[in-house]
Amino acid sequence: VLRGLIQERNAGLLARSLVARGVAVERTVIVGDALEDMVDALRGLLAGGPDLIVTSGGLGPTHDDRTMAAVAEAAGVGLAVEPEALALVRAAYGERPRPGVSAGTQAAIAAKQAALPAGSELLAPVGTAPGCSLRHDGTLIVVLPGPPWELEAMWTAALARGPLAALMERAAGGPRRLLRLYGVVESEVVEAFARLPEGLLEAVEVGVCARAAELEVAIAGSAAAPEAVAAMEGALLGAFGDAVFSRDGRPVETLVADALVARGETLAVAESCTGGELGARLTAAAGASRYFLGGVIAYHDALKRDLLGVPAALLAARGAVSAECATAMAVGARRAAGSDWALSVTGVAGPGGGSAAKPVGLVYVGVAGAGGAAAHELMLRGDRDRIRERAVQRALHLLRLALAKMAAADGSVTPR
Amino acid sequence: VLRGLIQERNAGLLARSLVARGVAVERTVIVGDALEDMVDALRGLLAGGPDLIVTSGGLGPTHDDRTMAAVAEAAGVGLAVEPEALALVRAAYGERPRPGVSAGTQAAIAAKQAALPAGSELLAPVGTAPGCSLRHDGTLIVVLPGPPWELEAMWTAALARGPLAALMERAAGGPRRLLRLYGVVESEVVEAFARLPEGLLEAVEVGVCARAAELEVAIAGSAAAPEAVAAMEGALLGAFGDAVFSRDGRPVETLVADALVARGETLAVAESCTGGELGARLTAAAGASRYFLGGVIAYHDALKRDLLGVPAALLAARGAVSAECATAMAVGARRAAGSDWALSVTGVAGPGGGSAAKPVGLVYVGVAGAGGAAAHELMLRGDRDRIRERAVQRALHLLRLALAKMAAADGSVTPR
Repeated sequence: VLRGLIQERNAGLLARSLVARGVAVERTVIVGDALEDMVDALRGLLAGGPDLIVTSGGLGPTHDDRTMAAVAEAAGVGLAVEPEALALVRAAYGERPRPGVSAGTQAAIAAKQAALPAGSELLAPVGTAPGCSLRHDGTLIVVLPGPPWELEAMWTAALARGPLAALMERAAGGPRRLLRLYGVVESEVVEAFARLPEGLLEAVEVGVCARAAELEVAIAGSAAAPEAVAAMEGALLGAFGDAVFSRDGRPVETLVADALVARGETLAVAESCTGGELGARLTAAAGASRYFLGGVIAYHDALKRDLLGVPAALLAARGAVSAECATAMAVGARRAAGSDWALSVTGVAGPGGGSAAKPVGLVYVGVAGAGGAAAHELMLRGDRDRIRERAVQRALHLLRLALAKMAAADGSVTPR
Repeated sequence: VLRGLIQERNAGLLARSLVARGVAVERTVIVGDALEDMVDALRGLLAGGPDLIVTSGGLGPTHDDRTMAAVAEAAGVGLAVEPEALALVRAAYGERPRPGVSAGTQAAIAAKQAALPAGSELLAPVGTAPGCSLRHDGTLIVVLPGPPWELEAMWTAALARGPLAALMERAAGGPRRLLRLYGVVESEVVEAFARLPEGLLEAVEVGVCARAAELEVAIAGSAAAPEAVAAMEGALLGAFGDAVFSRDGRPVETLVADALVARGETLAVAESCTGGELGARLTAAAGASRYFLGGVIAYHDALKRDLLGVPAALLAARGAVSAECATAMAVGARRAAGSDWALSVTGVAGPGGGSAAKPVGLVYVGVAGAGGAAAHELMLRGDRDRIRERAVQRALHLLRLALAKMAAADGSVTPR
């Protein structure tokens, strides 16, 4: 993680879980696997006297997995093989060691992974590695494995009972809101803040973050004065109205999914420069099969023609990166999949492939429905990753707005 | 980032850049936007006397963007509007302020974003926010914006000249290797380490990391004794042979891409449970159009039948999650796209949808080429995200191995 080879994911996972329980996350520290660096970091965190420290990773069988030893040293206790942990590790590896792994090596691995700090409570392994929780002065230290799904499962089990559950019961945060805005820039939020009633901005904690064509405004207040959070939310709703598209943390893809399911309608996609990223985003959450049928990745123009029915003459006259092509792709995906709706994306994600007429960042997103089809021209900034991410985001908002328009017309469910 | 709303990406980006220059990254710290927390974290890092501290984020227009103030306070210098920075910020916002943003607010925003620590060197804005570099005792502090593409562009500019360039010239790391292994588990690496010549494991730094069906082994040594790194690499190659599929850091998708381009062949995909993630992965790097044509996202069975030609009788008899369906999907994608090769994925990503006969984690990956088609059954562990990620990874390895087999037969380019 520290060398940037692996994208860290556990800190966010734990933070979301803690914030949802009213626990403030003060710091995330990533250190290498040298014992002294880990001990030093743990001691630095312990010095601040937090209620909770959670560690992630370093519980595996190889020599560079040193977290248990570091926690023991930082807490000033010994490290010893715990019989129950040993039995669980042996069971996790199964009766027969892997061919090519000697019985001696396997025994050493099991003993290593079953060694816990003295006085700690065992957390049963999800993969092969046990975790533990350890009280040190006023701080509870919870030691979890590194693979995100192992960490999440062990964390969930630890939350259910024992010292972590007791700690969570004591946490009682004030009210929080997460508003998501579309089509608003940060300077407009600064302007809105300048017009707030005196003292309101100081009475709450407000974080503003721009990301992929949206602004996120997180508001947190004290349990003693919850009305300030409501007043701040009201002020932002007053200033930005319909641009506040989500008030409960649901992202745009969930709003679109919920609206489609409520309407009993289906969706297909046609993707060129995003290469499947829109489909991957729509299917990242379980339950997508209730509304998502699939679609066509038409990276090469021949597939736009053969699988989506985009006329060769249109491609020749207007090019693949054009509003006409985006519209034809959406219409073609809707027809090919037999869906109620279809979204399309075609553009120049770069860094190469741009021209004066069609520069990098020029993207068209299209939508087709029972009422017809249309495309929007976007000029997106940033690198390839960011252009693709923003194109996906803008396509999702295009469908959200089309669904909202239809809901306004027929009085049905609004995607909100 | 600290609340887990946003996936942090800058630390990895900077780390890869630094590690490639022979700079060891010792610690990553993430703190909230309260001034005292930021100052406290910066002082803690300065106390360790590092050569370099890089900050990311907190340079925007809103009140919670406080990094310049925190850096100034931690370094014990003042904060003042820098005229050149002010001119650049004004230019970045353009002549006319956004409708709804008053001239007074716009002027306050510009003054805020142009305020730099005394004695710092300006880094020109990429978006609207200038950065800076500041020397404090023996440490160079480089202050960069938060959006990843702004950060990367400003970092690249800062590396090219001035104090950061001078610092990088002094960095001279020892040799490093990154080996990627497929089909090897950690306990086998422990076994191999147990058989190393005495002292070799201690003579180098070795990090072992399991991720998505692969093991990564990072080896680093001192410039004074480079032969230990070569000896360790040789020992691992001796122990694991062809399982070491990459020796230069190239990931499997790059190996596959390079081999296809060298052979002048093309690829298509057919995706069910991965919903487009395989296509998105293949097109994440620029230049994919040299070999990738596109494909079909066949999430719903009707699309497997209508767009990929999977026989309805096969779907009824074997089900969509079957080796037969995976094979038919690959054959269908190859035919529909007119490609030389095709990969398919179909499975139960969960958490719902599993049964006793077809549990969550059962995935089939298929490959079709001029020589025929085949599918492999996988039983993947983990949550939905991890099952999809591993399915994509295994599909890519399936093609890598098929290309290697073909290369061995016809003496052409091996994907290595």
